[in-house]
Amino acid sequence: MENIRIIEIKQSVFADNDRDADRLRDTLREEGVFLLNLMSSPGSGKTTFLTALIPLLAKKYRIGVMEADIDGDVDAKTVAERTGAKTVQLHTGGMCHLDADMTRQGLRELGTEGLDLVILENVGNLVCPAEFDTGAVKCAMLLSVPEGDDKPLKYPLIFRVSDAVVISKTDTMPAFDFDLEKCRENIKMRNPDAKIFPVAAKKNGDGVGAFADWLSAEIDAWKNSKK
Amino acid sequence: MENIRIIEIKQSVFADNDRDADRLRDTLREEGVFLLNLMSSPGSGKTTFLTALIPLLAKKYRIGVMEADIDGDVDAKTVAERTGAKTVQLHTGGMCHLDADMTRQGLRELGTEGLDLVILENVGNLVCPAEFDTGAVKCAMLLSVPEGDDKPLKYPLIFRVSDAVVISKTDTMPAFDFDLEKCRENIKMRNPDAKIFPVAAKKNGDGVGAFADWLSAEIDAWKNSKK
Repeated sequence: MENIRIIEIKQSVFADNDRDADRLRDTLREEGVFLLNLMSSPGSGKTTFLTALIPLLAKKYRIGVMEADIDGDVDAKTVAERTGAKTVQLHTGGMCHLDADMTRQGLRELGTEGLDLVILENVGNLVCPAEFDTGAVKCAMLLSVPEGDDKPLKYPLIFRVSDAVVISKTDTMPAFDFDLEKCRENIKMRNPDAKIFPVAAKKNGDGVGAFADWLSAEIDAWKNSKK
Repeated sequence: MENIRIIEIKQSVFADNDRDADRLRDTLREEGVFLLNLMSSPGSGKTTFLTALIPLLAKKYRIGVMEADIDGDVDAKTVAERTGAKTVQLHTGGMCHLDADMTRQGLRELGTEGLDLVILENVGNLVCPAEFDTGAVKCAMLLSVPEGDDKPLKYPLIFRVSDAVVISKTDTMPAFDFDLEKCRENIKMRNPDAKIFPVAAKKNGDGVGAFADWLSAEIDAWKNSKK
């Protein structure tokens, strides 16, 4: 396979990230590119989830992926090899999150022409990414079973800003004290509107299809709402 | 049990955190209090590890614990109930890490008089806590098996600043693709001096004793080096 392109992202020059995120969203709407911001803790299974999700969506959409990390390019390689999606690796220069301008830099390097959907795999972190609007149309997050059902109690904001919460690694539930119903309650306490998808992406792909259906409906609704 | 005290930490007023951390370290040396900064991702098992560790150290040292979180008090309750250690819950006001002054505020509220060892359970985050010296004598981190053996590749700094790396939840290895030797290599690449402790704190306590021995030796060496 060809080598993964690694892009060193520069810190933003814009003071008002919220306004800049709206500007980026406007641009993406003009281009017809739906941006999904995918967040989670380190090691909760974002990349494995994407390798299961992308083949389900690739029949309908042309997809690009931006993998954001402090260092390394393992995730970008995995996604490119397993899905064939157009993929770049973003290095954040030590930064703990991406904001709208950093996302824009990544999109420019990825090249959005002809794409319907771009998925940003944000830096693994339950705190900072939630504070910065990337310009995405929708935000989703993963909470993996090994992390525990109490995470919404400790990290309120990321659950509040996520339109969808994927509960990942559900096949490992027998090895952990994880109460799925309690977890649902904790998520709903932070965000009553959040869609919740229990998923076992590596084991058997259970639940990935339901998320793909949700995302597909969101993309189609967004495209149809285009004025 | 008595209710856990929850302390709302204010943002620091000191511009130069490194100097402030040195000042705090000097104060703690005068008081004879050894501060350990314990870091990790969300849900990697810091609290469970502490509930197994503290009883092993409590015969020799008087121990205090500061639990830092964005919100909630579940960890402080667990530690206090299971270990009887003097415990406070720190709320960071949304902040993703603690710096030296925030740590000082916590220590003041905890009350260090008569304590030999204070353990700070930092906010669950592999990025930001690594960037801020808390004034601790030593830093340790947990990397849990479910997070994967590749984390040192993606989050270099936290492995670089940690004197000890606990590989937690080793009993769940059969459920995950986790290569312990590869993980050791990845850690050593970032920090050749890091002590590495595979641990199964919840299952059977394997490895917790080895970490307790290391920490105990570090505390004694520090006390003896006192001028």
